[in-house]
Amino acid sequence: MTVKAYGAHAKDKDLEPVQIERRGLKPTDVHIDILYCGVCHSDIHTARSEWGPAKYPVVPGHEIIGRVTAVGNEVTLHKEGDLVGVGCMVDSCRTCHSCQDDLEQYCETGATFTYNSHDPHTGGHTYGGYSESVVVDEAFVLSIPESLDTAKVAPLLCAGITTWSPLKHWNVKKGDKVGVIGLGGLGHMGIKFAHALGAHTVMITRSPDKAGDAEALGADEVLISTDAKQMKEHANSFDFLLNTVPVDHDVNPYLGLMKRDTTMAMVGAIEPLSKVHGGALISKRKNIAGSMIGGIKETQEMLDFCGEHQVLPDVEMIDIQEVNKAWERVVDADVKYRFVIDMASLKK
Amino acid sequence: MTVKAYGAHAKDKDLEPVQIERRGLKPTDVHIDILYCGVCHSDIHTARSEWGPAKYPVVPGHEIIGRVTAVGNEVTLHKEGDLVGVGCMVDSCRTCHSCQDDLEQYCETGATFTYNSHDPHTGGHTYGGYSESVVVDEAFVLSIPESLDTAKVAPLLCAGITTWSPLKHWNVKKGDKVGVIGLGGLGHMGIKFAHALGAHTVMITRSPDKAGDAEALGADEVLISTDAKQMKEHANSFDFLLNTVPVDHDVNPYLGLMKRDTTMAMVGAIEPLSKVHGGALISKRKNIAGSMIGGIKETQEMLDFCGEHQVLPDVEMIDIQEVNKAWERVVDADVKYRFVIDMASLKK
Repeated sequence: MTVKAYGAHAKDKDLEPVQIERRGLKPTDVHIDILYCGVCHSDIHTARSEWGPAKYPVVPGHEIIGRVTAVGNEVTLHKEGDLVGVGCMVDSCRTCHSCQDDLEQYCETGATFTYNSHDPHTGGHTYGGYSESVVVDEAFVLSIPESLDTAKVAPLLCAGITTWSPLKHWNVKKGDKVGVIGLGGLGHMGIKFAHALGAHTVMITRSPDKAGDAEALGADEVLISTDAKQMKEHANSFDFLLNTVPVDHDVNPYLGLMKRDTTMAMVGAIEPLSKVHGGALISKRKNIAGSMIGGIKETQEMLDFCGEHQVLPDVEMIDIQEVNKAWERVVDADVKYRFVIDMASLKK
Repeated sequence: MTVKAYGAHAKDKDLEPVQIERRGLKPTDVHIDILYCGVCHSDIHTARSEWGPAKYPVVPGHEIIGRVTAVGNEVTLHKEGDLVGVGCMVDSCRTCHSCQDDLEQYCETGATFTYNSHDPHTGGHTYGGYSESVVVDEAFVLSIPESLDTAKVAPLLCAGITTWSPLKHWNVKKGDKVGVIGLGGLGHMGIKFAHALGAHTVMITRSPDKAGDAEALGADEVLISTDAKQMKEHANSFDFLLNTVPVDHDVNPYLGLMKRDTTMAMVGAIEPLSKVHGGALISKRKNIAGSMIGGIKETQEMLDFCGEHQVLPDVEMIDIQEVNKAWERVVDADVKYRFVIDMASLKK
C-alpha cells in the first residue's frame, strides 16, 4: 500500500514529500493512522548519515501516536479505534536472553528499529513516523492512556523511555538525591520522572539561565556545575546521576558528586568520552554505565505511570512542512523541549 | 621507641637505612615484629612523589607479615606470638557509613594509610613495613592462617585484597566467565582467585608469550587482545572483567567482550582514561567501575579462604639491601609476580 510521508533522499538533502510502500497486514499486524510524531535528534543523525551510511530514502520518526484502523486476524492486544504508540523498535528476535527478559532493545541479534533498519518482512528497510500510517506487529504497539493529552504524548516513546528506564533500573526511589545533567529533550523528561518518583531532583547545568525552567519542570534544586563552591557542597552526595549530555564532555566533575557505590548512567553521548578518571571511580567504587531506550513491557509501564500521574513532555507543535526548520532548531538546541509534528498537516 | 627501617629522604633518592620513631602502645595497640614485607608499585609512586608531594622520610610497605610481641591492656583480638598481617590501612574514623559497612577503605573522612598518611596519634606521619616493627590498633591487624607458607603471604594484603574484593563485590561465582586483563602483581592474583572461586578464567593480554605463565597460574584460556578474530569469538560473552592494567589504555576493545548488564572493574589505572566509548556502554547497558583494596572484615575473609584453599602469590624473595634494584625491576614489569623482602636482612 502506497502512503504519503516526508523523507530525505540523500544525506545533504532537506526532507520533502515522498511516497513509500507499507506492507500488507500479517495476521499479527496492526495498521495505525498516525496522528502525531515527535522529532528526535536521532532522526537528524540518521538522515544525514552521521551514524554511518543511511538507506535512502530515510523516513524518520520513532515517537509515533495514532489510532488503530485495522488489525490482522490473530491480533489480541489491540483493536480498531484504540489509541496506540510506536517507539524506536518494531520487532526483535523474541527468543534470545535479552528478549526473554523483556529487554528487546538489547536483542542479541539486533532489534528491528522503526526506521532505517532492515525489514525482514519486506526485504527492504523500515520507514518511520513522518508518515500518514504505519504497520507494526502487535507486540511492539503500545497502549496510550486516553487520560493523557494526545498531542503531547509522542516524545514519551523515545525521550521518555530513555530516561525512565535507567531511573527504574538503578532503583531510584522516594527520598533519593538524583542529579539530571543536561536540560534538553531527554533532560527535561529526566527531571519530570525523577520528581514524579519522589526523588530530591537536582538539575545539574553549566547555564545559570536554565534555573527557572528547571524548577518549573520539577527540579528541587539547581546546581551550576561551573561553580566550584556549589560543586564542593554537593560532593559525594548523590544516589544517582542521569547524564543526558549528547556529546563528549568532561565527566570527572560529576564523578565527584556521587556517593560510594552509585552509578552515573549515560544516555546521550554515544561517542568516545575523553579523560574518564580511573582514580575517581576507584576511590569510592563508583560506576559509569550506559542505558538505551527501554523494553516494550517497561515502556507500557511508563505510559501507564504517565497516565496515572499526568506526566507529559513540554512540546512545541509544528506542521510537517516546517520540519526542516525545526531540525535546524534541534541542532541549535533551540526547543523547549521537543517538537511534535501534527501529522494531519501531511494532508495539506 | 626508635627502630630501624629503610626509607627515602627525597623524591629522587634511593632508599637507605633510616631510624624512625614508633609510638608507645595505646591500650588497643598491637606491637608487631615484622618478618616479611611485600613490594607494591604504590611504594614507588609514593616515595617518588608521583602521586603528589610525599612526606619525607617515606618508609614504604603495606604488605606486612609479622609476629605479635606485645599488646595493649585492652586488646582482645590478638595475643603475643600470633602470626598477623597489616595491609594498606592502620586506622579510620569507624563511625561513618562506609566504616559502619565494614568498608574502611572508603572512609568518608579518609582512612589512615599505612605509610605517608597523617597519624593522629603522633601528629606526624605513618611509616610502613620496610622496618623491623610496627604498632597498629588491633582493629586493623589481620590474623594469618598458620597453614600458609609465611614467606609468601605478604602480597595478599594489597595485591590480594585489591583483586579479591571486586570479584566478591560483583558476585563472581562458579561457572561465570571472568576475564583478567593484565598479568602483573594484581593480575596474577586475579587469575588465582577467579580460578579458586570456580569461574571459567580467561587471561586477557596483548602478549602471546604470557600464555604459558597464565595457564600455570590457573587460567582456563588465554585471549590475545590484539587478535581481532579471537576478540570477535569472545564478543559479548564475559560475566565480569577485572582490569588490572596500571596505566591509561584503550578500554573499548574490552567493553566489546562483556555481556549485557555486566561490569568491568578497574583496579589499576588511577589516571584519566582516554576514549571510553559511551556507545559501547549504552548498547548493552554495560558498566565501568572502580574498586580500591578492601575492608578489614573482607581482608580477613580472603585470608581465611587462602588458608583453606592454599592460595598464595608467586613471589621472589629479596633482602632489604636489594630493594632499590628490585624497584627498578618493578618499574620495568620484570618480576613474577611480587617481591617480598625478608626483613631479617635488616639486622645484617
